[in-house]
Amino acid sequence: MGSFRTLSQSSSRLLFRQLFEKESYTYTYLLADSFHPDKPALLIDPVDKTVDRDLSLIRELGLKLLYAMNTHVHADHITGTGLIKGKVPDVKSVISKASGAKADVFIEPGDKITFGDLFLDVRATPGHTAGCVTYVTGDGPDQPQPRMAFTGDALLIRGCGRTDFQSGNSGQLYKSVHSQIFTLPKETLLYPGHDYKGFTVTTVGDEMLYNPRLSKDEETFISIMQNLNLAYPKMIDVALPANLVCGLQDLESKAN
Amino acid sequence: MGSFRTLSQSSSRLLFRQLFEKESYTYTYLLADSFHPDKPALLIDPVDKTVDRDLSLIRELGLKLLYAMNTHVHADHITGTGLIKGKVPDVKSVISKASGAKADVFIEPGDKITFGDLFLDVRATPGHTAGCVTYVTGDGPDQPQPRMAFTGDALLIRGCGRTDFQSGNSGQLYKSVHSQIFTLPKETLLYPGHDYKGFTVTTVGDEMLYNPRLSKDEETFISIMQNLNLAYPKMIDVALPANLVCGLQDLESKAN
Repeated sequence: MGSFRTLSQSSSRLLFRQLFEKESYTYTYLLADSFHPDKPALLIDPVDKTVDRDLSLIRELGLKLLYAMNTHVHADHITGTGLIKGKVPDVKSVISKASGAKADVFIEPGDKITFGDLFLDVRATPGHTAGCVTYVTGDGPDQPQPRMAFTGDALLIRGCGRTDFQSGNSGQLYKSVHSQIFTLPKETLLYPGHDYKGFTVTTVGDEMLYNPRLSKDEETFISIMQNLNLAYPKMIDVALPANLVCGLQDLESKAN
Repeated sequence: MGSFRTLSQSSSRLLFRQLFEKESYTYTYLLADSFHPDKPALLIDPVDKTVDRDLSLIRELGLKLLYAMNTHVHADHITGTGLIKGKVPDVKSVISKASGAKADVFIEPGDKITFGDLFLDVRATPGHTAGCVTYVTGDGPDQPQPRMAFTGDALLIRGCGRTDFQSGNSGQLYKSVHSQIFTLPKETLLYPGHDYKGFTVTTVGDEMLYNPRLSKDEETFISIMQNLNLAYPKMIDVALPANLVCGLQDLESKAN
């Protein structure tokens, strides 16, 4: 008490909003550099059904949306990137090159995505799908502390994405999480692509201890994943072809 | 860029988790002093259905739960405070004296609720109900910056609680929000009791500008509230009597 430490301005520089889509239990994340005159912003994993909500918020906050990004090709909902590009033409869609999907910008591990004086690092975290990435806030004195990682479905709070579709591979997912996420500082805040129980955030340290799958050894993890006996994903046949082309809207315009 | 300012340790001292209950769209908030050896904690607006989730999280995080607090007597869900007290006997239930409800600790405007070296200020914000309060993180160098306010149903993101039941009064609600919430610094983070559209947080500045009801003058606000034509609250007849005695569990034990 009474002891202080110097933190960077970045804690207030980053404007951050976590947004929930209740049908697919998806989290969309809005990040912006609020100190930059343009207030440049990006959206991670927007959903088609909540695009109007997200764009209205962006307008009210006076942000300039640069990027509509996906962590991977989703099987459970349709991405909002196509709709967003239709409504805000300057926005660039972003996805990993390894995803095989269409986008304006293809990112690869080690790339930086810059918005104002803030940036995200791209880490490859395949295993749920072959093209999954985790976006991590930059490491540096003018970047947010603690760091924040947007893990998509590679790591969920006390869980993880399934590995039985879309070139999923449980051994690969285990290695991805342990080498790319669990090596971040323990206090790193982890923001997942979904949550089904009402959790909003976790930390690296908490998941290393309490994730009932990923805290185990690799062999046990693979066995757990092999025995989940999950139902066929109900949206997959609609969502995958749409999301491979940046959302259903592009599909429809192709058909016309 | 490159310019720094001194922030207190409090940004990392406060352990904070926002938790969602999907049937009543209720947010429960967990706050703890993570630097204190006991990690003393409190829950704001726990829901009966998610008590096990909340207590499991508290256990994993190694926290000592001191208080299970309500912002008001809820009409749309049953509070978890009764269940929590049954499972963790040392926990004290907290509600405002003006609520007329049963609890271990009755708080009044101006009171402080201390957990470790952190505290919440109590502000009276009646109008949705006669006993509504807003809990605001302390003002001081060793308290979280920006400040955080837990508004219950007095102020919702781009909305507010209804004023047609439980001694509701729209003129009073307007005065409460304008005198007790909109006088906080504009960057104050506002955490509501519910959200129905997937928003998780807002700020004083944003609501002063964009709240479609409370940004208007008082007369217009009262007229808006008079013409909402809302349905009878479906849970009110079950929830009110239970919540007046700290959750249904107490009611049941009385009946036995």
